[in-house]
Amino acid sequence: MDEQVREPKAVLFSKRFPALASPTPALPYPMRATILTVGDEILIGQVVDTNAAWLGEQLSLVGVTVNRMETVGDDLAVIQEALEQAFAEGDLVIVTGGLGPTHDDVTRNAVAAFFGVPLVSDPAILSALEARFAARARPMSEKNRVLAEVPVGFDVLENPKGTAPGLWGERTVGGRLQTVVMMPGVPYEMEAITTAHVLPRLQERADRVVLHKTLLTVGQGESMLADQLGALDDLFDDGLSVAFLPGRGVVRIRLTVHGSDRREAQAALDRGLARLRRDLGDLVFGEDDQTLEGVVGAMLVERGLYLSVAESCTGGAVASQLTSVPGASHYFNGGVVAYGNGVKTALLGVGVDALDEHGAVSEAVARQMAAGVREALGADLAIATTGIAGPTGGTPEKPVGTVWLGYADADETHAVRLQLTHDRAINIGLSTTAALNLVRRQLLRKDAVLEA
Amino acid sequence: MDEQVREPKAVLFSKRFPALASPTPALPYPMRATILTVGDEILIGQVVDTNAAWLGEQLSLVGVTVNRMETVGDDLAVIQEALEQAFAEGDLVIVTGGLGPTHDDVTRNAVAAFFGVPLVSDPAILSALEARFAARARPMSEKNRVLAEVPVGFDVLENPKGTAPGLWGERTVGGRLQTVVMMPGVPYEMEAITTAHVLPRLQERADRVVLHKTLLTVGQGESMLADQLGALDDLFDDGLSVAFLPGRGVVRIRLTVHGSDRREAQAALDRGLARLRRDLGDLVFGEDDQTLEGVVGAMLVERGLYLSVAESCTGGAVASQLTSVPGASHYFNGGVVAYGNGVKTALLGVGVDALDEHGAVSEAVARQMAAGVREALGADLAIATTGIAGPTGGTPEKPVGTVWLGYADADETHAVRLQLTHDRAINIGLSTTAALNLVRRQLLRKDAVLEA
Repeated sequence: MDEQVREPKAVLFSKRFPALASPTPALPYPMRATILTVGDEILIGQVVDTNAAWLGEQLSLVGVTVNRMETVGDDLAVIQEALEQAFAEGDLVIVTGGLGPTHDDVTRNAVAAFFGVPLVSDPAILSALEARFAARARPMSEKNRVLAEVPVGFDVLENPKGTAPGLWGERTVGGRLQTVVMMPGVPYEMEAITTAHVLPRLQERADRVVLHKTLLTVGQGESMLADQLGALDDLFDDGLSVAFLPGRGVVRIRLTVHGSDRREAQAALDRGLARLRRDLGDLVFGEDDQTLEGVVGAMLVERGLYLSVAESCTGGAVASQLTSVPGASHYFNGGVVAYGNGVKTALLGVGVDALDEHGAVSEAVARQMAAGVREALGADLAIATTGIAGPTGGTPEKPVGTVWLGYADADETHAVRLQLTHDRAINIGLSTTAALNLVRRQLLRKDAVLEA
Repeated sequence: MDEQVREPKAVLFSKRFPALASPTPALPYPMRATILTVGDEILIGQVVDTNAAWLGEQLSLVGVTVNRMETVGDDLAVIQEALEQAFAEGDLVIVTGGLGPTHDDVTRNAVAAFFGVPLVSDPAILSALEARFAARARPMSEKNRVLAEVPVGFDVLENPKGTAPGLWGERTVGGRLQTVVMMPGVPYEMEAITTAHVLPRLQERADRVVLHKTLLTVGQGESMLADQLGALDDLFDDGLSVAFLPGRGVVRIRLTVHGSDRREAQAALDRGLARLRRDLGDLVFGEDDQTLEGVVGAMLVERGLYLSVAESCTGGAVASQLTSVPGASHYFNGGVVAYGNGVKTALLGVGVDALDEHGAVSEAVARQMAAGVREALGADLAIATTGIAGPTGGTPEKPVGTVWLGYADADETHAVRLQLTHDRAINIGLSTTAALNLVRRQLLRKDAVLEA
């Protein structure tokens, strides 16, 4: 019941920090920010604004509190009003979008007007623009010159992934520092400018450090993980906060520490990480931006092994996930999508007897598929999936969501059964994650046997 | 250059409607709305707010103008201020989130306070809640009773997908009708309530109808499509607006008509659709919510044909996309992910000569892969992909993004070459779409031959 009605929230554990009373400091910290997105196309739902969430996370991680996220249209007056409101309740506004060359791109003008400064053409940006056009042997139209315009007094933040730079402006009003940062709305350009320039500048201002690290786990849901970790008072007492961020079969656990001394903060973070790793053991497969398919790939490369897959219910999703990693050809030689039973028998050598006696979704068939694809493709190890993804096809004995995963190497074959959900896409996703994790766990087990 | 610096916007074509002067009407139309999202978890970037984009599109499609999207924290005063501002500039506020049972869920209280009405427990909601708990043999905790609370005078909008209902309130202030709608933040619940109750109520209010239809195209970029359609003045003169919504290899073209008479509006929409279909021909593969994989699947079922795939550069993505459709086993028997050359020769019968002479990324190998998988899996027709997805592996003759698609049926084999981008994920996505479209075009060509 609770699960039905609650909002989909990450589980957060933290002791509340006492509000930091900071009477009009020159560099107020923690800073309070508004994330302002400009663009008519967002208001009519043609584009989902993922920039705000990304910025929200990044700002939170350097200790900036986000008061508000707001999307407004390409309207000079409305943008100015939004800036007015944002600085009435905070110190920092990050604006994305509306910096292009067309007449409806008015962000630059709105910010300049709000700061009461004119726009001037920046020679360096202009010549970079002209060079870019020249390189493509195309004339630069007059309207593109606006891309070089900068409000007087603003810093230009180089764009590592494109031409339109970020712009950083600040002024002091009533003893409070107001900072505005403008960036293009193209996500990878915005992210590059933020990482290269905006976050370092914000961190420089901080009178306290904020450190964080995320552990990636697979194989247990968040409530089981929380049970396994027990009370977290030792972490809280060490000044750490803990967030559980669930995904499809993967739960990220993020530790954050705020402190005035970097070495102390780092030591507290290290203690917390060691505690989590000790209690979670092999459930942890990586850190921060790693992926399960990347980690499995690296483990295979390290051991000089090749993997093959035989997929029925996942229909190619396991192979697709493995090959999303550049260089996958160094450990993945291929797979068979054995959707029909005829393919299972013809290419994988699954026995007609096994299919008749146990059905395609069975331990016997999962094992034979794994062994068969391993042999057919000449791999060192292999995994197989067979199950009822849904929405139909279930029986009382094998309801929708029943999945068998098979495993085979030179020494052994075995299979494990999963009971998943009623949703086809979720079942395919969870089976794929579980199949990759099965490879990982088998490799770890072999390591342990070798060491013993 | 233009492509580099512009914001990622859909191309919109429309004659501007003259602003409708409407001096304080009882039912102002077009309505102006704010979409207000409540939740601390969104401000820190743990959840991407997709609800706002979905609502923005749905509201636009019934003729409501979205002024602003805004996300604020779980804070009573801040939510009230946001409502204040929203009604200062519009007539409608859609609030999602913050309706759960925990102490930080304050949306219900904030809206009731803003309207100046108390909350009362709704017996019907309460008994539904109690029944739900009883069915699970669990006691209902006291805090869950808050879920039954409704501001006095508000309508309860039944939730087809969950327990927490939507709440609809309205009042007239200074001759203007103010409407607020609260819904749970869980996307599928919010969408169900909006579709079942909110949009019909908004449409009832309209003094004009808004109709729309989306054509789905594949095989041409948006600028080529625009060229092929020529000037759209005939559509504009008929009161239609046209939006080009590009995706990964698929461009959606949406026609919208606003009018006072439903039959006239429908006739104009039909004329516009007929014109687009005439000029675009086979580039159109479907309408509205259809998918390319679904359309291809239905074409195969209709003709009683089975498809197989042999994938190198797409690594299982084509099979995965095909099997994302329930019932795919009626036309897809399977595939081979032939990532290593050994798999191409062993399972697909690709000649070592062809690999040596032309390389794996070549017309010869693409044709042999398609013919080979068709034979190995006993399919009626087959497609194959081989290419350099990147980011590395390119040569001057075959740069990253070079892809060959093979096709084979009982009568013929052939292959087509694509030159795509430098981005691995984009190349895999575009190759997958192109492979599915190759099947579609071949089936259409065979129909034409049979008819001739």
